[in-house]
Amino acid sequence: MPGSAQVDHTAEQGLLASDGASGPWWRLTTRQPVSYEVRVHPGLLDPADPTLADAGAPEQPRVARRLVVVESTVYELYGQEINAYFTGQGVRHEILVIEAHEQVKTMDTVMTVVAAMDAFGIVRRAEPVIAVGGGVLTDVVGLACSLYRRATPHVRVPTTLMGMVDAGVGAKTGVNLGHRKNRLGAYHPAVATLIDRRFLHTLSRRHIANGLAEILKVALVKDEALLELLEAHGERLIAERMQAHGSMDDGVCAEEVMRRAIQGMLAELQPNLWEHRLSRLVDYGHSFSPAIEMQALPELYHGEAVSVDMALCTVIARRRGWLTGVQQERIMEVMRAMRLPSWHPVCSPALIGAALQETVRHRDGHQRLPLPVGLGQARFVEDLTGPELDAALAELRRLGHLRKDIAV
Amino acid sequence: MPGSAQVDHTAEQGLLASDGASGPWWRLTTRQPVSYEVRVHPGLLDPADPTLADAGAPEQPRVARRLVVVESTVYELYGQEINAYFTGQGVRHEILVIEAHEQVKTMDTVMTVVAAMDAFGIVRRAEPVIAVGGGVLTDVVGLACSLYRRATPHVRVPTTLMGMVDAGVGAKTGVNLGHRKNRLGAYHPAVATLIDRRFLHTLSRRHIANGLAEILKVALVKDEALLELLEAHGERLIAERMQAHGSMDDGVCAEEVMRRAIQGMLAELQPNLWEHRLSRLVDYGHSFSPAIEMQALPELYHGEAVSVDMALCTVIARRRGWLTGVQQERIMEVMRAMRLPSWHPVCSPALIGAALQETVRHRDGHQRLPLPVGLGQARFVEDLTGPELDAALAELRRLGHLRKDIAV
Ligand SMILES: NC(=O)c1ccc[n+]([C@@H]2O[C@H](COP(=O)([O-])OP(=O)(O)OC[C@H]3O[C@@H](n4cnc5c(N)ncnc54)[C@H](O)[C@@H]3O)[C@@H](O)[C@H]2O)c1
Ligand SMILES: NC(=O)c1ccc[n+]([C@@H]2O[C@H](COP(=O)([O-])OP(=O)(O)OC[C@H]3O[C@@H](n4cnc5c(N)ncnc54)[C@H](O)[C@@H]3O)[C@@H](O)[C@H]2O)c1
Repeated sequence: MPGSAQVDHTAEQGLLASDGASGPWWRLTTRQPVSYEVRVHPGLLDPADPTLADAGAPEQPRVARRLVVVESTVYELYGQEINAYFTGQGVRHEILVIEAHEQVKTMDTVMTVVAAMDAFGIVRRAEPVIAVGGGVLTDVVGLACSLYRRATPHVRVPTTLMGMVDAGVGAKTGVNLGHRKNRLGAYHPAVATLIDRRFLHTLSRRHIANGLAEILKVALVKDEALLELLEAHGERLIAERMQAHGSMDDGVCAEEVMRRAIQGMLAELQPNLWEHRLSRLVDYGHSFSPAIEMQALPELYHGEAVSVDMALCTVIARRRGWLTGVQQERIMEVMRAMRLPSWHPVCSPALIGAALQETVRHRDGHQRLPLPVGLGQARFVEDLTGPELDAALAELRRLGHLRKDIAV
Repeated sequence: MPGSAQVDHTAEQGLLASDGASGPWWRLTTRQPVSYEVRVHPGLLDPADPTLADAGAPEQPRVARRLVVVESTVYELYGQEINAYFTGQGVRHEILVIEAHEQVKTMDTVMTVVAAMDAFGIVRRAEPVIAVGGGVLTDVVGLACSLYRRATPHVRVPTTLMGMVDAGVGAKTGVNLGHRKNRLGAYHPAVATLIDRRFLHTLSRRHIANGLAEILKVALVKDEALLELLEAHGERLIAERMQAHGSMDDGVCAEEVMRRAIQGMLAELQPNLWEHRLSRLVDYGHSFSPAIEMQALPELYHGEAVSVDMALCTVIARRRGWLTGVQQERIMEVMRAMRLPSWHPVCSPALIGAALQETVRHRDGHQRLPLPVGLGQARFVEDLTGPELDAALAELRRLGHLRKDIAV
């Protein structure tokens, strides 16, 4: 099912040279071709399966060297398997283990990865760096690769649900700058992202819920059927950590939820990979959440902050009459069922007001605020006023719920 | 004169989704449109001329804020004029003055610029950062802009000849990593580069010669007429710092040299802006020079190291019979006339051998070494051997000349 491309085709490619009144001038116009793959692939660490070892360098004769960057908790859990895998595939590999969480999502950590790449003596294009870990790890390694020789290829193996459906499938990489979330970064997609749901069996349930927040986002703005799947199975997906435990049905359901989430995300990204258009449906839940997340750090996870933001936008939309009270309650209920918060005490009018201002700067002087219109659709607004925002916030303070602890 | 584009058009754009044996997979294919302008524009700081103030945000209603980053020596010389210019244009501006030379061409300096951008509270796309200075300054600011919000626009005002014909007109930005030249960076062209030759009247003659080295490069690989201009006028272009002092002819000549150099450079870059093809004519002089420059730092300028490299490749080519002895002597002679070295004592066989190895890694396991074939043409080779390189180096050691000091 090929998607439709909405890239501007009017500009000719080439070099235009002219003599102006003041002197010669040139206009250079071109397009950078980009192509990458996202693949659901169970059994990724099976020593007999060459998929991971070959990823990103398929046309080369087998190049037998890889630098693998692994997040420290993941290394504790899967380090032996990872080593055995590359050894089994006859790949000379070096493993760099790094801590990767929001507080060390910084340029310093990027420079640690860069130093390891340099020491490894990586060849320019034929030795993709392999990143194994959550969204923080893949964002940091992606940025290091983007910088090194101005673009070294990388392969992502996301090990969190957030990574599998969101951080791992787009083009963005990034780190925080002080308290500014992902303020520094690059568009540098992995040549391949390989997804094996099995990693999730060791992930905390809270982190599963965290990933489900981004899936809920896709559901709310563009896929009502996905919303229905989450309503029907969300609680159990968390309990079973997206693994197929019981009946065949469960496995199929987890897979279908992931398939729809990735499909929805990629379909949004494809025509707008570099965000030339700043009105983005996938920014739903990402207007106020950067400030909420950074303010509440380390108490809220990314997806939890996104959830609070989605709840706030839900209330704004309902107050405008774009959602019914029943629809609003369905959204709040699915959040509750998936152990996602719709409120956090840091959400003062001052913080939320400042968050909007910062988002307006980020959207180039416009609000471009995606708001739900019914379930599974959204529209962009420019006219949210301070009083309207304050009133919605006050309402959410009353009706919202905090994050409920879940058994690990 | 529209140039020809050689970008690959075979890949369809879109999102392909399929169900594989192991699970669903997607291939996302797209192209990033890029377009930028290079403009020779005398009188850039004339307070009545809106060109610089408007550059990079032409469709916007006048946005009256700019962050201007100026190299410290340039600020001493032109600071008052720059301030008066933006004030005259009614632009609220802030000026960040930074030191920028090869030893501080580091990620730390990038972070200084980033911090200033953050403090300025730059809007995402409507407030291009303006970079005024030599190649180091524009490379550093370009990288900071590339990182900030994953791509903030910038405008370059190169104030060195190197900047005007090379560093300022391409897409590359970068900083050094330890002793590795430009190892970290991004492809992030300025939306506009504005060139005013007048800045050169305060530049040292040695730096003029330094810029002429990159012009000589373009001449040797693709423009014999440009080579003849350099042979006839090179010495005087340095003496007069590319200004039109005497007859009309001189001014026309300096302008023509710049026009041909920029045209040649852009024509090479246009079909290969992201270096998908690693065989690049403009890499002539850039195979051994990174190691030479970093080893001799701060004794050799970038263009001087390039000149030594070009001389070495000239000797290699002559030994292969691709240049006559007379042609080789013409090249050496124009270097001498333009006060460019063809030799430096750091060029030990060990350093040059290691330089080639490093370049092979940078060209993805291949030499892709551009060598001159006659004057104004070149070809790529893969078969340079250690003994051949050593023999050419030994010959150059005998016949090469060191840099001659020039009156400032
Ligand atoms: N680039 C993008 O487009 C994009 C999109 C969404 C989110 N993000 C970023 O992703 C980050 C959040 O990602 P995240 O939620 O994966 O957080 P994370 O990377 O911090 O990982 C969460 C935790 O899970 C642990 N972990 C990872 N895999 C595990 C496994 N298989 N078993 C047990 N423990 C495991 C890690 O040790 C970590 O403590 C944020 O920084 C966010 O900005 C980026
Ligand atoms: N990005 C690219 O594609 C590219 C291409 C070529 C070179 N470069 C880089 O450019 C750098 C070299 O650039 P450069 O030669 O301009 O060196 P530079 O930036 O160090 O400037 C040279 C000196 O000139 C002084 N100066 C600048 N303008 C002046 C003026 N108008 N009057 C008086 N003094 C002035 C500066 O203070 C500085 O000391 C290298 O780091 C090289 O890697 C980049």
